[in-house]
Amino acid sequence: MARIGIFDSGVGGLTVQRALLEAVPAADTVYLGDTARVPYGTKSAETVTQYSLRNARFLARHDIDLLVVACNTASAVALPALRAELAVPVVGVVDPGARAAARASRTGRIGVIGTQGTVASGAYQAAIRRERPDAVVVARACPLFVPLAEEGWIDPADEIVRGIVRRYLAPLRDAGIDTLVLGCTHYPLLQPAIAAELPGILLVDSAHAIAAEVRAQLGADAGGPPDAAEHRFFVTDAPEKFLAVAGRFLGRPVEAAEHVDV
Amino acid sequence: MARIGIFDSGVGGLTVQRALLEAVPAADTVYLGDTARVPYGTKSAETVTQYSLRNARFLARHDIDLLVVACNTASAVALPALRAELAVPVVGVVDPGARAAARASRTGRIGVIGTQGTVASGAYQAAIRRERPDAVVVARACPLFVPLAEEGWIDPADEIVRGIVRRYLAPLRDAGIDTLVLGCTHYPLLQPAIAAELPGILLVDSAHAIAAEVRAQLGADAGGPPDAAEHRFFVTDAPEKFLAVAGRFLGRPVEAAEHVDV
Repeated sequence: MARIGIFDSGVGGLTVQRALLEAVPAADTVYLGDTARVPYGTKSAETVTQYSLRNARFLARHDIDLLVVACNTASAVALPALRAELAVPVVGVVDPGARAAARASRTGRIGVIGTQGTVASGAYQAAIRRERPDAVVVARACPLFVPLAEEGWIDPADEIVRGIVRRYLAPLRDAGIDTLVLGCTHYPLLQPAIAAELPGILLVDSAHAIAAEVRAQLGADAGGPPDAAEHRFFVTDAPEKFLAVAGRFLGRPVEAAEHVDV
Repeated sequence: MARIGIFDSGVGGLTVQRALLEAVPAADTVYLGDTARVPYGTKSAETVTQYSLRNARFLARHDIDLLVVACNTASAVALPALRAELAVPVVGVVDPGARAAARASRTGRIGVIGTQGTVASGAYQAAIRRERPDAVVVARACPLFVPLAEEGWIDPADEIVRGIVRRYLAPLRDAGIDTLVLGCTHYPLLQPAIAAELPGILLVDSAHAIAAEVRAQLGADAGGPPDAAEHRFFVTDAPEKFLAVAGRFLGRPVEAAEHVDV
């Protein structure tokens, strides 16, 4: 049976794990949330790469068959360094999300939203144009979305939520996009509010795109009884706060998480 | 001439340095923003204490005469550990702010706002009651305020700003407070919006309270020509983002910051 290592800057990567648990239910998983250094999205590529390497080394010691970089910022800036160091395949969220958007868009006008780090890296923009050279990509950082999701202010009827979503997304709507990539693992929680502001625009959630890619890579290895699968959670800060919100992101209860220094 | 070491989790401590530059203009300063690990306010007391000790050791190597802990979260949880290790006096923002509020309040009903870490620590609540045992303290974490201030969304006429400020502060207003401590170094940027929501309520900014305390501690040492004072800035992440917003917090241009690992 395959074992998948997953890391994220914090709790957001659990939306990726949620999609993985549906796509490859029999696989064991080891999740590491770098909650002591979260967020990555506001930090430089050098710092994010350094943290990503430490996370990956920790997971590599758990005999993983494949590493999933669930953090968009880390996927955008650290994949080459991770692939140079690790012996197992490394899958990031950017390429699968970009590919899904490039294929789904009718007009080729594609929006990308994410953290400042992800947007500044240009990784989504480049990955979409590799798949579809004629694409027009409009990208925008939405720094308030992560704290909104963590605060649990996600109701599309909430005027504060609506106001913030509108302010960030109006320029994308005005640019005439027909597809929008949710380029941050926190954003699926805001999907109803984003959809309400952008009627008729297709929303691409990288979590499902990467889950399909992992399933394809693992192939027959993904089989087996789901009940036998083991799921372990590690965090670099105290586990209490992680445990308090993890269920909302994973869509099922998280009973325990272990503290670790990486 | 005295040299003051100042650390904060990021850029917010520059509002404290701003008050220090007015109160003790002749002192040299060495500022360290731990921008690679910012924010502290959502993290556990153990993790914040560990980071604070690393910051303090770095500043101690710069021959400082006094250490100012400009971060409210670090002041709330790490002062005992810092004082046990450092040979120079250590001043935090919590006690001066709490004292100023306890003395200024007529009714003894005092509000405190800060990060989740600061509020959960109970440090302000305890410090206010030490000064004024009959005080009724109402505390509330306001997690959206830091990203709002960093995004520069601070205009009191902005309906998003007004909505968020109102949602957090209505319970404090309803509790009948007459004084509110701004227990986070980012919050002075939101002071106009907070004041508009709480007319007639006194706002206590810890930055000015700690600056007065530092001036008293340094005494004659604080004298000398301001023009000769040297101010150095260090950050743990890449300096560009710090430099882009530092001026807004310090109230004067910041020309250069050096990257350092601590």
